[in-house]
Amino acid sequence: MGPWLSRPSIGRNEVGDVSPGATGDRTEPAAVIPGELADLLERPLYAHLATVRPDGTPQVNPTWVRFDGEYLWLTATTSRRKHRNWQIQPAVALSITDPDRPWRYLEVRGQVELIVPDPEGAEFVRLAERYGMPQGPPADAAERIAVAIRPLYTTTQ
Amino acid sequence: MGPWLSRPSIGRNEVGDVSPGATGDRTEPAAVIPGELADLLERPLYAHLATVRPDGTPQVNPTWVRFDGEYLWLTATTSRRKHRNWQIQPAVALSITDPDRPWRYLEVRGQVELIVPDPEGAEFVRLAERYGMPQGPPADAAERIAVAIRPLYTTTQ
Repeated sequence: MGPWLSRPSIGRNEVGDVSPGATGDRTEPAAVIPGELADLLERPLYAHLATVRPDGTPQVNPTWVRFDGEYLWLTATTSRRKHRNWQIQPAVALSITDPDRPWRYLEVRGQVELIVPDPEGAEFVRLAERYGMPQGPPADAAERIAVAIRPLYTTTQ
Repeated sequence: MGPWLSRPSIGRNEVGDVSPGATGDRTEPAAVIPGELADLLERPLYAHLATVRPDGTPQVNPTWVRFDGEYLWLTATTSRRKHRNWQIQPAVALSITDPDRPWRYLEVRGQVELIVPDPEGAEFVRLAERYGMPQGPPADAAERIAVAIRPLYTTTQ
């Protein structure tokens, strides 16, 4: 994937209201994503990503996503509003429902931790394949980024 | 529906970055919801509602919703975190995708304008019916509220 470009600081707002450990320990992802809902991240389901705009209001958009066991990975471009948003407020949240049983849902709140330049569009190509829309690098590959979100808290039903 | 309980003030954060008119005029809903995506609000599709928590971080959860031509209506309870959130930051956002063509999506950003006590659970009953899960009033009817969101801006694809 190449080296990480930036590790946004938490900024003025600390994440969440369940401390992941005042000692600085990370909550282990295995403990964060409940096993009984792990299929929602394994299946190529669309997630809805909430970010906070610089004026403090929310934005939410559907997105492709994959989980590598540590991070949730997205593809984006440097010209997207969400990229502007998470550079200022790295806390984000994703919601995924089970299309077959929509009352089964997983919300993951976490934090954008890595932003990796992706000028070949490799993350886009990988996700397009995962979502059953195989294709070559996108026209905007030059400004593509791969974005890694560390899951910190979940809400489920 | 009964009288409105509260009209949250906009608070420290103004909504959005596209002015609905500095003269105080409202953007007309008819102009806000694009006709070619109106079916996403007509069909009983789950929306994903983003709210901002008091610490400035986002939250997103699936929700039932109906559009009456002016407001997007939800059912909630006074003990939900999202109720706490929108009392402080009334700006919210909803994302809905077309399950048949998931690249068709509608994001509505708007503002919680009415919070109506719903002790009979009428809004819950109405939405449960709409979503194909007809049932009587919920056990928590006493703390039920109907929440009206005024759409202000949309993003579509």
